Amino acid sequence: MKILLAVVSMAIASYSFGQAEDSVQIRRIADEILTNSKAYDNLRHLTKQIGGRLAGSPGMVKAEKWAAVKMKEAGADITWLQQCQVPHWVRGGRDEAKVSYSNKGNITPKALDVVALGNSIGTGPKGTRGEVLLVESFDDLETKKNLIKGKIVFYNYKFNPTYVNTFLAYRDAGQYRGQGPSRAAKYGAVAVIVRSMSHSADNNPHTGATRYDSLYAKIPAVAVGLRDADWLSETLKKGKVNVQIRTNGHFLPDTIGHNIIGELKGTQFPDEIITIGGHLDSWDNCEGAHDDGAGCVQTMEVLRAFKAVGYQPKRTIRFVLFANEENGLKGGNKYADEAKAKNEKHLFAIESDAGGFTPRSLGFTVSDEQFEKVLRWKELIAPYGASEFVKGGGGADIGSLNKLLGTPMGSLNPDSQRYFDIHHARNDVFEAVNKRELELGAVNMAAIVYLIDKYGL
Amino acid sequence: MKILLAVVSMAIASYSFGQAEDSVQIRRIADEILTNSKAYDNLRHLTKQIGGRLAGSPGMVKAEKWAAVKMKEAGADITWLQQCQVPHWVRGGRDEAKVSYSNKGNITPKALDVVALGNSIGTGPKGTRGEVLLVESFDDLETKKNLIKGKIVFYNYKFNPTYVNTFLAYRDAGQYRGQGPSRAAKYGAVAVIVRSMSHSADNNPHTGATRYDSLYAKIPAVAVGLRDADWLSETLKKGKVNVQIRTNGHFLPDTIGHNIIGELKGTQFPDEIITIGGHLDSWDNCEGAHDDGAGCVQTMEVLRAFKAVGYQPKRTIRFVLFANEENGLKGGNKYADEAKAKNEKHLFAIESDAGGFTPRSLGFTVSDEQFEKVLRWKELIAPYGASEFVKGGGGADIGSLNKLLGTPMGSLNPDSQRYFDIHHARNDVFEAVNKRELELGAVNMAAIVYLIDKYGL
Repeated sequence: MKILLAVVSMAIASYSFGQAEDSVQIRRIADEILTNSKAYDNLRHLTKQIGGRLAGSPGMVKAEKWAAVKMKEAGADITWLQQCQVPHWVRGGRDEAKVSYSNKGNITPKALDVVALGNSIGTGPKGTRGEVLLVESFDDLETKKNLIKGKIVFYNYKFNPTYVNTFLAYRDAGQYRGQGPSRAAKYGAVAVIVRSMSHSADNNPHTGATRYDSLYAKIPAVAVGLRDADWLSETLKKGKVNVQIRTNGHFLPDTIGHNIIGELKGTQFPDEIITIGGHLDSWDNCEGAHDDGAGCVQTMEVLRAFKAVGYQPKRTIRFVLFANEENGLKGGNKYADEAKAKNEKHLFAIESDAGGFTPRSLGFTVSDEQFEKVLRWKELIAPYGASEFVKGGGGADIGSLNKLLGTPMGSLNPDSQRYFDIHHARNDVFEAVNKRELELGAVNMAAIVYLIDKYGL
Repeated sequence: MKILLAVVSMAIASYSFGQAEDSVQIRRIADEILTNSKAYDNLRHLTKQIGGRLAGSPGMVKAEKWAAVKMKEAGADITWLQQCQVPHWVRGGRDEAKVSYSNKGNITPKALDVVALGNSIGTGPKGTRGEVLLVESFDDLETKKNLIKGKIVFYNYKFNPTYVNTFLAYRDAGQYRGQGPSRAAKYGAVAVIVRSMSHSADNNPHTGATRYDSLYAKIPAVAVGLRDADWLSETLKKGKVNVQIRTNGHFLPDTIGHNIIGELKGTQFPDEIITIGGHLDSWDNCEGAHDDGAGCVQTMEVLRAFKAVGYQPKRTIRFVLFANEENGLKGGNKYADEAKAKNEKHLFAIESDAGGFTPRSLGFTVSDEQFEKVLRWKELIAPYGASEFVKGGGGADIGSLNKLLGTPMGSLNPDSQRYFDIHHARNDVFEAVNKRELELGAVNMAAIVYLIDKYGL
């Protein structure tokens, strides 16, 4: 009995000692980031000097070159570019939607603030003209299916403000952007206008990828700003509205993009890989500051901070800026394919792709047993913002790794209130990012990577 | 044994039923606020149409009139103005600090971005001129005390970036604004320049009240923007720098201000009062959007939402917009004095005065027993943002009530990362406030007031 007690108390002592040591190490990393971070300056360069960087664009090429240099500067043992074939959609010009409506008996013109949906086809130079049919939901679409032929369907589905986690509202409303064009085309619509996936107080339209169903005609599709959506909806209640839409979207031949990868080689288990990343591409109509410049500069900041405090990981840590998240996922797929082909052992992957806002939680798609294990670290990370550890989490780019190899994955979950004010819209700019919130995201990512590196999963 | 079990399970069932009912009621209030809130529009009016509203200013008078109307509109049973005598400090003109320094042998001029500290005296029209003495801390001041006579002391004490809770950095650095002028005057300084209490990335100077010690001469004092502070510090390392400061601050005779109070009369315990509030005054150099327009419109929003969902409180709830928090606390003191004089029974008071940012926690200055009780409600409120309940909390205005009557008090603690970017600076404007973050603050305040009203404390 005495021996058993001694063993137990030794175990407790060693656990406590470990926790204290980890607490000190995480504090050291946090202080380094909060005092000497390069994340904010890097983000300024990426957004202001390079700007939008959709797959295939000149911005993509510039961003890749810059990132490879910065990854090396941040202290990677080795840095490489992982080549992949990416789609090359171009907007092709200015998106327009001109309304004419009856205003006290006079036909009055008005321009709506619109942006073509990513991957959508253009109208051609003459544009597409039609009467607007207001549709509040897919159910509403079905009830109106006989009225749709030759019309422009306007999906005015609201972004639900009562979800405190705004990503739930996005998932709910996002189907109208993804499926809306084809579901309207099925009944003969000539074009689609979608209410922007946002609850912002401004009128900026929000783009994002649509997905055509090959069964139906591909029709032009734009997103409209919220004030104009409200105006259009009100005006349609009073009478007919015609819209002339002109967009110019089209695909050029696929081209070559790259994941930018930096690596710290593990000292004890070099074959076990932990991946941390964000995606380097962004939509073309913004600076891609929160989406996902933030995730990229945080990823490189974790690397820089590990080197700055002299942390030598036991396992191999890969810092990855993925290509083509927005309209193809070719970078993430390539990374997973190559991992599988090389029979790599991936222990864990984590992504930051929900904006550079103040951290609130870490999400984990892991086994119950693994979740129990990470939960023990919560008190070590909570002081830096991620005060909750939740089940579920990951990212679009690392999702391929999870699917193909079953790699456990996680996500940094920052506060979501401001994300859909700027997501895929022209106001996703450097100025919308707060330096400390951005840095704290890096701190929380660094902490969980440090712990998983040290203790495994 | 059977009976005991039955009692226990009944107790559990009744507790669960209560929790479920509360969960539904809080959800109802939250949905009302997130869908129909007037907080953002009210804040727009207060900041854009009225603007700065320091005690004694025309802005104060306009704000009081407007708030009394809005309080009634929000649904108060009765609304009244509680008169108090407030100080009337005026800036009196533009604050200036002109440097001349040796630049490659030439004496070169440069204007620093400064703002006079609140309650500070002006230099007079000719200004105050002196050589600048760099001081890094009060310890440093003591070592240099023989060098100070006739000089302008520049306190360059850094806002510590490693505190995750930025209010700790503010408490740490804030003493230089409060005590700095008198401690320098003690050794013969003619004026003081204080590094702004901020870690922002811009150059906006941050004001705030200073407190002269009556033992020493009152000397002019300004805060300087961070970039200029860094520049001045670097330049002083290379050689002498002279500064000409001109400020015009002075006190006019005390004047009359008012707390704006709305009340919902309790149906069961009308003599037990719960206070919820923010302060209506702001510094003159900004719109006072986060500090504390946010707290004011949140307070009125809680009232509006209670009425909108038909909630009839058991206890009397007072919605109070306090006067003169920034440079005198006369409103808070008056409220407490009158409560004491009338022998009112104050059950609890809560204040929102830390910005309209996303809620993170609720703080409580209550007995251990009371804290145990509120902790049981944590899971009811956590889904709306305040996922932690912490000991300690309150507010400057309700602090008087706590001191005088021992009233338990609490605070809404929003995320603190962005607060000191804008606090008391010209960029504390409407545009810096996010609609949903503001609304969620009201939701969390409403929830805790609802629970304390229902169950007591």
